[in-house]
Amino acid sequence: MADALEQLKERLTETQDLGKIARLLSWDQQVMMPRAGGQHRAEQFGALVKVAFDKFTDPAIGKLLDELQPLEESLDPDSDDAALIRLTRRDYEKAVKVPSSLRAEMARASSEATPVWVKARAENDFASFLPVLQRNVELKLQYVDLVADGADERYDVLLDDYEPQAKTAEVRAVFAELKPPLVGLIAELRDREVDDSFLHQNFSEEGQRVLGHEVVDLFGHRPDSWRIDPTEHPFASGQGRNDVRITTHYHADNLHSLFSTMHEYGHGLYSHQQPEHLERLPTGGPCSLGIHESQSRLWENLVGRSLPFWQFFYPRLQETFPEQFGDVPLDAFLPAINRSKPGLIRIDADEVTYGMHVMLRFEIEQDIVEGRIELKDLPQIWNQKMWDYLGVEVPDDTHGVLQDVHWSGGMIGYFSTYLLGTVMSVQIWQAVQRDVPDLEEQVGRGEFAALREWLGSHIHELGRKYTPQQVLERATGSTLQAQPYLDYLRLKYADA
Amino acid sequence: MADALEQLKERLTETQDLGKIARLLSWDQQVMMPRAGGQHRAEQFGALVKVAFDKFTDPAIGKLLDELQPLEESLDPDSDDAALIRLTRRDYEKAVKVPSSLRAEMARASSEATPVWVKARAENDFASFLPVLQRNVELKLQYVDLVADGADERYDVLLDDYEPQAKTAEVRAVFAELKPPLVGLIAELRDREVDDSFLHQNFSEEGQRVLGHEVVDLFGHRPDSWRIDPTEHPFASGQGRNDVRITTHYHADNLHSLFSTMHEYGHGLYSHQQPEHLERLPTGGPCSLGIHESQSRLWENLVGRSLPFWQFFYPRLQETFPEQFGDVPLDAFLPAINRSKPGLIRIDADEVTYGMHVMLRFEIEQDIVEGRIELKDLPQIWNQKMWDYLGVEVPDDTHGVLQDVHWSGGMIGYFSTYLLGTVMSVQIWQAVQRDVPDLEEQVGRGEFAALREWLGSHIHELGRKYTPQQVLERATGSTLQAQPYLDYLRLKYADA
Repeated sequence: MADALEQLKERLTETQDLGKIARLLSWDQQVMMPRAGGQHRAEQFGALVKVAFDKFTDPAIGKLLDELQPLEESLDPDSDDAALIRLTRRDYEKAVKVPSSLRAEMARASSEATPVWVKARAENDFASFLPVLQRNVELKLQYVDLVADGADERYDVLLDDYEPQAKTAEVRAVFAELKPPLVGLIAELRDREVDDSFLHQNFSEEGQRVLGHEVVDLFGHRPDSWRIDPTEHPFASGQGRNDVRITTHYHADNLHSLFSTMHEYGHGLYSHQQPEHLERLPTGGPCSLGIHESQSRLWENLVGRSLPFWQFFYPRLQETFPEQFGDVPLDAFLPAINRSKPGLIRIDADEVTYGMHVMLRFEIEQDIVEGRIELKDLPQIWNQKMWDYLGVEVPDDTHGVLQDVHWSGGMIGYFSTYLLGTVMSVQIWQAVQRDVPDLEEQVGRGEFAALREWLGSHIHELGRKYTPQQVLERATGSTLQAQPYLDYLRLKYADA
Repeated sequence: MADALEQLKERLTETQDLGKIARLLSWDQQVMMPRAGGQHRAEQFGALVKVAFDKFTDPAIGKLLDELQPLEESLDPDSDDAALIRLTRRDYEKAVKVPSSLRAEMARASSEATPVWVKARAENDFASFLPVLQRNVELKLQYVDLVADGADERYDVLLDDYEPQAKTAEVRAVFAELKPPLVGLIAELRDREVDDSFLHQNFSEEGQRVLGHEVVDLFGHRPDSWRIDPTEHPFASGQGRNDVRITTHYHADNLHSLFSTMHEYGHGLYSHQQPEHLERLPTGGPCSLGIHESQSRLWENLVGRSLPFWQFFYPRLQETFPEQFGDVPLDAFLPAINRSKPGLIRIDADEVTYGMHVMLRFEIEQDIVEGRIELKDLPQIWNQKMWDYLGVEVPDDTHGVLQDVHWSGGMIGYFSTYLLGTVMSVQIWQAVQRDVPDLEEQVGRGEFAALREWLGSHIHELGRKYTPQQVLERATGSTLQAQPYLDYLRLKYADA
C-alpha cells in the first residue's frame, strides 16, 4: 500500500512539474517571447499540455487510487496523504470524463476565437464574434453534459473548475445579499464630488518602476526568488516557491501600475508561501481562484488603499513625484484613490462598483448555460443590466459585452471568483485583526512580517489540502459572508 | 505505409516540440530565472527530459521504422521523407541502447559535479574535483561500452553525439596537419609587438549594448523574431525559426561583448533560417555542433575581424566611444583586434592560438577513453602540453585543467567541434566568395543579404537531412581540409 502511495506520488510529481513548465511557457509568452514566436509557442504548449493530461489520466492512476482506498479510509482525513488521495481522486474522476478529442477541440476553438475577439472588440463588431462565441459555448455545454452527472445544477460544473466544490446556489445567495445594498451605495456615491485630477497626470515610467519595486520590497519578499517585469496585461505566475514572477503595466498618465503591483504581490506571496513539504504534489498548489484573489485584493485594497499604509508611504510618493503630489495633502490623496464612480470597464472599477460588474457576468453565464437567453441578444442584455446596476449607458460593445477576454477563451464560470475573493478578503482581514491587534499600527510603520506570517500559516500553507470553503472557515472561523464586506464599504465610504 | 509515415511524423513532432521547450527552460535559467529557482528548474527539466526521452524510445517508434523500411528504400535518398526515416532510425538505435537508469545516473552525476567544479576552480583545488570527474568518466565509459558496437574506435561514440558520423581518425588526421604549422606560426607571432592597449579601457555598458544591437541589425534579422539579453556566459538558443534568442556579457574593460555578439549572431541566423517545411521534424534542426560553430566563427572572424567590415563600421565605433578611439586610426585598430598572443584560457584565445587549446583537449580525451592516462595526472599532462604547444607556463589549475565546464557536465567529445567549425568556416567563406565575387565589397558597404541568403540556401536550409560531412561537401564542393584555414591565417598574419 505504501508502495502504491509512492507510485502515485511519483506520477503526480511528474505532472505537477510539467504544469509548472506550462506556467513558465505562458509567462514567457506574455513577457519575453519575440512577437513572431506565437505559432511555435502554441505548438509547444499543445504538446506539453497533451503529455501532462495523458500522464494524469493514465488508467494506472485510477488503479492506484482504487488500491489506495482502504489506506485513505484508515488515515486521519486531515493528514497530507489522505488529502492527496482525496484530491487526486476528485481531479482524476473529473478529468477522465472528458475525452481528449473534446479537450483538443475546446483548446482549438478557444485559440481560434481569441484573435477574432481582439478584432471584434477593436472594431466594435459583436456580429463577427458571435459565431466563434457560439462554438465555444456549444463545446462548453458538451463538456457540462459529460461532467454534470450528480451536480445540483449544470453551472456547478463550470464554477467547480475555478472554485472547487463551490455551489452556484451558495454563490447566488451571497451575491443576492450584496446586490441591493451595493446598488444603493453606488447610487448614493455617484454624485459625491471627489477631486482626483492629480492622479491623472504624467508619471515617468522610471518613477513608477522604482515605487513598484519599493512597495514589493516593503511588503516583503526574497529578492533571489522574485522578479517583476512589464507586460501588457498584468498577472502573477509561480513556477515554485522560489521562482515567483509578477508583472505590471506602466501607464504614462496614471498610477494603476502601483496598485496592480500590490495586487500581484498578493498572488505572488501566496505562491511563495505554499507548503514546502508538498511542493511537488497537487496538494501543494493554491486552493482556488477565489482564495487566490482574496490574497491579491487584501494587499491591494485592505493594505494598499488604507490610511495607515499611506501615512507611512505617502512621503515616498511625494518625493518620487514632487511636481504631481508636492501640494496634495494626504487627506486629499486618500479619497482620490478610493473614489467610487460607476464606469463601463470592469478592470478599472473601484471597490464599490466592482461587484456589480461581476454579478452581471455571473447572471448572464447562468442564463447561457441554462439556455434561457440567446447569444445574439447578449449586447442588449448586457447594456440593460449596466443601466440597472450601475446607472451607466453603454455606448458600444467595445466598452460593453466585448471588453473581457474570458468568453473568447472558453472561460465560463471564472468571473464570480473575482467577487468571492473580494468578499473573502475582508473576512480574512478581520480575522488577522483579531490575532494581530495592532495590525493597523504595524501597517502604519511599514511592518508586514506578522501579516505575511499569519497569511502563510492560516491560508498559504494549507495548499490545496482543503476546499476553499474549508480554508476560509479554518482561517476565519466563518463561512462565506456578505455582511463584513458591506460593513467595510459602509464604514470606508461614510468616512470619505 | 503513408499512414505509418504520418504516425511517425506525429510522434516526432511531439518530441521535437518538447525539445524546444527544454531549450527555453535552459535559456530562462541562464537569463531570467530568479537565482533561488534552481532546484525547481532541475526538477522541471528532469521531468521534461524524461518524458521526451520515453516518447522517443517508445517501441512503437521502432515498429514504425521497421514498417517504413521498404518505403525508405523506394524513395529518393535525398527526399525529405527518406532523410527523416534514415535519421530517425540512427537516433533511435543509438538512444535505445542506453537504459534510462544509466541516463538518469549520468544526468545526476553531471548536475552534482558542476557545483563541485565551480568551487574547485575558484579554489584551485583539482583534488576535490577528481572524485566527481572520475564518476562522470566512469559513467561515460559505461555509455561507450553500450553504444560502441560497430564503431571503429571507442571515442567515435562520443564524437558522434556532437558531430554525427564524424570519425575520430579523420579529425585526428586534419588536426595532425594543422598542428605543426600552427605551433610554428604561434612561435613566430609570439614576439611580434602589437599595441592593443586602447582595447583595454573603460567602455560603458550602454555604449556596448547599442553597438551590439546595431551590429545584429546590420548583419540582418527580423526584430519580431529575435531578442538579445545579457547573461554570464554567452550562448544562443533557438525555440524555432521565429524565436531566436542570443545572449552576451558586457565587460566593463574590453569589447569582447561585441565580437561575442557577432559569434552568437551566426548561431542565431542558423536557427532563424532552418527549413520551414521541416520545422517540427528532427530533419529540420541544425546539423551538428561543428557546422553550427562554422556559422558563428564565420560571422565573428571572417566578417567581424576583417578589414572591409571595419572600413564600414569603425566610424560608428569611434562615434560611440570617441575618447577611446578618436585618435586611433583604423590601421592600428585592425591589428589590435587580430593580435595573436599565447594565453592560458581557451575562450580568450585568438584565431591562431585557439586551435592548440582544442587539440590539447581532444588528445587528452582520447587518452582518457582509451585508458592511456590516469585522471589524477591530468594537471601535469595539461601543463606539459600547454608548454609544448603554446609555450605557456600554467601557474595553477584554475587557469589550467579546471577552466572549462565541459568535463564536469560529462561533455566529453565536444571540444573538437569548436576547431572543426573554425576550419570549416574558412572553407565555407571561400565557397561564398566563388559564388558572390564582390562579397568583400558588399561587406565593406555593410550589405549582408547575399551572404545570409547563400548560407541559408547552401547550409541552413539543409537542416539535419545530411551528415555534417555531406553538408560541407554540398556547400563547398570539398571534404574537410586543413589547408584553407592555414592559408587564411598565413595571409592574414603576413599582412599584420
